[in-house]
Order: sequence, then C-alpha cells, then structure tokens
Amino acid sequence: MNAAGFPKRVTICEVGPRDGLQNEAVTVRTDDKVRYIDLLVAAGFSNIEVTSFVSPKAVPQLADAEAVFTQLIQVPACRYIVLVPNERGLERALAAGARAIAVFTAATDSFTHRNIGMTIDESLAAFEVVIKRAKADGVYVRASISTAFGCPFEGAVPVANVVRVAERLLALGADELSVADTIGVATPNQVFDVVGALAPRVPLERVGLHFHDTRGMGLANIMAGLQTGVAIYDASAGGLGGCPFAPGATGNVATEDVLYLLAGMGIETGIDLAKVRAASRFIGEKLTGRVVSRAFHALEAADRRAAVHV
Amino acid sequence: MNAAGFPKRVTICEVGPRDGLQNEAVTVRTDDKVRYIDLLVAAGFSNIEVTSFVSPKAVPQLADAEAVFTQLIQVPACRYIVLVPNERGLERALAAGARAIAVFTAATDSFTHRNIGMTIDESLAAFEVVIKRAKADGVYVRASISTAFGCPFEGAVPVANVVRVAERLLALGADELSVADTIGVATPNQVFDVVGALAPRVPLERVGLHFHDTRGMGLANIMAGLQTGVAIYDASAGGLGGCPFAPGATGNVATEDVLYLLAGMGIETGIDLAKVRAASRFIGEKLTGRVVSRAFHALEAADRRAAVHV
Repeated sequence: MNAAGFPKRVTICEVGPRDGLQNEAVTVRTDDKVRYIDLLVAAGFSNIEVTSFVSPKAVPQLADAEAVFTQLIQVPACRYIVLVPNERGLERALAAGARAIAVFTAATDSFTHRNIGMTIDESLAAFEVVIKRAKADGVYVRASISTAFGCPFEGAVPVANVVRVAERLLALGADELSVADTIGVATPNQVFDVVGALAPRVPLERVGLHFHDTRGMGLANIMAGLQTGVAIYDASAGGLGGCPFAPGATGNVATEDVLYLLAGMGIETGIDLAKVRAASRFIGEKLTGRVVSRAFHALEAADRRAAVHV
Repeated sequence: MNAAGFPKRVTICEVGPRDGLQNEAVTVRTDDKVRYIDLLVAAGFSNIEVTSFVSPKAVPQLADAEAVFTQLIQVPACRYIVLVPNERGLERALAAGARAIAVFTAATDSFTHRNIGMTIDESLAAFEVVIKRAKADGVYVRASISTAFGCPFEGAVPVANVVRVAERLLALGADELSVADTIGVATPNQVFDVVGALAPRVPLERVGLHFHDTRGMGLANIMAGLQTGVAIYDASAGGLGGCPFAPGATGNVATEDVLYLLAGMGIETGIDLAKVRAASRFIGEKLTGRVVSRAFHALEAADRRAAVHV
C-alpha cells in the first residue's frame, strides 16, 4: 500500500461564501462578504461558490446576491460560481454577469420534494431549461446531487439512483457534478461503492465529491475518494456551515484540513494554506468565532508559539 | 477499489481514563473515574488504559491511581492497562494488582530527554528491567513509541528510527506496540510508509496505531492503517484529551468517530457505540462539556429529535 495511484493534482471548490455562510446565524455585511471572497481568490482557489440567487426569503443571509456579485472585481484565474434554483434565478445571475452557475437536485424524491417541492424528475425537467439557456450563453454549469450517500427522510440511498441522476445531468449539458453527502453520514466504503458505480458510466474527471464533517468522516471519505481517482472536492474555509443542533459539530469539511491532508500526501492544489487561514480569520471575526477547522486552530496556535520565541 | 483487504475485526484500546483525563484541567473524583471505567467496560472494550502510576507531581489528575485501580471490580473480558514509567511505578502497579502495563519511549531523543530525562537507549535499558520483571510475573506489556510520525523538537522522524525502537521493544518482551502520532501531524502517506517499513520486521498483529486529531487527520490515518492491515487502534471516548492551546482542538481521536467509521465499513469491534456515548455523557458532565467527538454530538442530536417525535 502506498500513495501511488492518487491524483497528482486536486481541484478544491471553495464553498464557504455560499454553503458556509448560508448556514450561519450572524448576518454578514455585503462588503465583508466581498472582502472574504477576495481573500479566498488571493489564496489561489480556481473555483469558488460566491453566492446564491435564491429567494431572499428562503436564505436571508444571501439576500444581497446581486450586490455581492457586482461588487466583486473578478480575476480570470478564478471561476465565480453562483447557485441558481430555477429560471428566475438564472435570469438574475445572468443579469448580474455570472459566467458559472450551480444547480441542485438530489438522489431521493423525498428530499427534492421537501426542499423544492418537486420530484427528482420534475427538477431535472426544470433544470433542462436552465442548463440549456446557460450553455447557450457559454455559462459553466456545475450540478450537485444532494443526499447521494444518505437521506434524512429515506435513509439509505440505492447507488443506482445516484448513477441515474448523474447521467441525466451530464446529458442535459452539465459540465461538472458535485456528488454530495448532504447530511454527513457516509463512510469510505460508500465512496468506493458510489464512485465505483459511476466510473464506467460517466467521465470521472467531471465528478466532484462534497462531504460534511457532521460525524467526523469528511477526511476519511476524501481519502477514499482520492483512492478512486476523483480529483475535485468541495470544502469550506474554516469549516463554516456548522450544524445548528450541536456545539462543535460542523457542516462542510474544512478547507484547511483538506489542504493539510493533500499537502502531506504530496498532492498539488495551487492553494496557499496560510492565505486560506487569513480568509478564515477574517470571516471568523464577523461570525463570533465559528471557525471549527482543526488544522486552522493547530496552525494558528503554532504561529503564536513561534511569535513568542522571536 | 473496495473494502476487501481491510481487517474483518479491529481491537480498540480505549485510552480516555488515562491519556484523556490526564490532559483535562478539571479534577475528576476517584469514584467518578471508577464509574467512567465501569461504563466503558460495559460498552464492550477488551482493552482500557485505566490510570497511570507516575509521580502525582507530574500528573496530578491521576494521583489517585492506587485508589482507582483497587476500587475497580474487574471483569475477565477486559484488560485493565496501567501506565508505568519506571521500576518504582511497576512496583506500585503490581502491589495494586495490575496484570497489564503500558510503557512509553519515543522515536526521538529530544522527546525522551524532555519528557523522562533520558535518551531512547537509556529508556530502553530502563524498560528492559521493567519489562522483564513484568513478564516474569505474567503481566501483559504494551509498549508505546511516541513521536513516531513527527517530533515537536526534531520535526520529521526517519522511519528507520521507528523500526529500530519497535524491534528493540519486542525483543525486550513487549507483547504489543502502540506507534503514536503524539502531536497529531501525520498524514496517511506516513502511515503507509511507517507500517510498510514495520511489516517485514515485526509481526503486524502486534502493532497498534495511536492518532491525535489535532489537525483533523485522525480518521484519515486510521483509514490508511486499515488498508495496511493494522487491526489495533487507540481512541478516547468523547475525544477527551484536548489540546490546551486551542478551543475545539482535540487530542486523541474520538472513540465514537472511530466506531462510526468501522461500523460503516462492516468491521467488527464488539463495542456498543450507544454505551460508549453513555460513558462520554457521564464524564463530559464532570468536565463541563469537554466532549468534542463529532459522531457523539450528531448521534445525541439525532436521539433528541427522535425523542421529540415520540
């Protein structure tokens, strides 16, 4: 057993400004969001979920999507991805100048029904219009499959459901998939199973994985993903996006932890971990200390000790 | 890639009452320690580090080692392991009735020097006497190698140093090794490297791995260990043993997280996760909420939600 066979380079899709912030109770000012995103861009991310053109009533934290997006001074090296729930959201995104969108469906009907009031098939029909319009405009499309490893309403999810939705989304024109363990229940054997089932049916270089650290499995699942050859992972700087139900419990796997793992494994990302910490430090102060990344805290403490000795 | 090749059964050495508690600032009463250990035994652990016969000045939390050990009503299915730093400690342990001891050296001289005032070779000479006396009495000997994956004073640690110390400890009569990432810096490639170097030289069924979750790498490293065939892991119920330097940072990898991982992988442990949570809940109350296990909090929250719906 060795590290051969792991990808040499991995792409991190930073989801802190969207998936992270939308789960935080403290409202962040628009210009702080813009600065947070700029700090992340400076750290070297090539893909960032920056905001969401959903109804302000659904996600009050991201009600300033237009303002955030239009204030950003975009650099060419980074893809600024915005969530788009429907055609109306796409129109708002395009009007704001977005060139990359994320659409979300799921692997279970119960979940899509509760979240967007549709079955999976109805959501795919709705996204067909969205994706075609986006692609006709040359817009990059990322498509997420929620509950791919477990559903809060249905429990275990057949792998065949994930494969079916993945194939449909790519057939509709999606450029890239994000296969998500929305509720953080997956263990590595499921990663082997799901990716193993996808590999013969879809191009693996277009598959990303999205893990939550709710039960502490995030990095073990990423290890399994690396072993299957998947080279795209979502992560949230500082581990933002904490579950509201438990102190210390986290939502998205923390970018700092993922970068520490990948650096140790000799896998390139092009991202500067110290600069990611600077972004987390900045947004953490706005969120009264919600940074839960373990690598963040360990590295911050090491720097403080080093500073004392100077 | 699949789960074939992983061990079918794994032994967890529960270190909460010793390695966990000794790093906690709140002093726990003797009878609460005894009850905590009894709750862990009831959960099904076959190996528990219960206390330490070190100087009370060095570790005030465990100054009641004799009282804890003699109050325990031992069950045959469990090995009650006590830390023994030297011959004096062994005498105290034997007088209290201990039948299993843990001895600690390291893979780096700087670390043994700062911790026990000896070089590695001097510590091995000292433990030769301890181990021989223990084995002559039929006492089980667990030998730990600290800083096997990184040293706070020397940085990177040559794998050859770990192999040399491991071979020496087994030659002295140790029954089992615990190869430890004392400061929580390891990444999975190091696990492949260290276990890969040990495998041709020592019997792998006598090798355990001990990870800290300081940078969030604990479960990823255990995944790597499982892939190398190692079937003994140390863990601390609730993730006790937090680093004093950072809020939310943890010490030992949490037993609940490890059990959730292994259950998901279909690997047997013989341990009841719900009963481990009961032990963590009990000791967590004594420690004013120091339980940091993510699986613990997620599962507790799930139970609360289920209770509401009854």
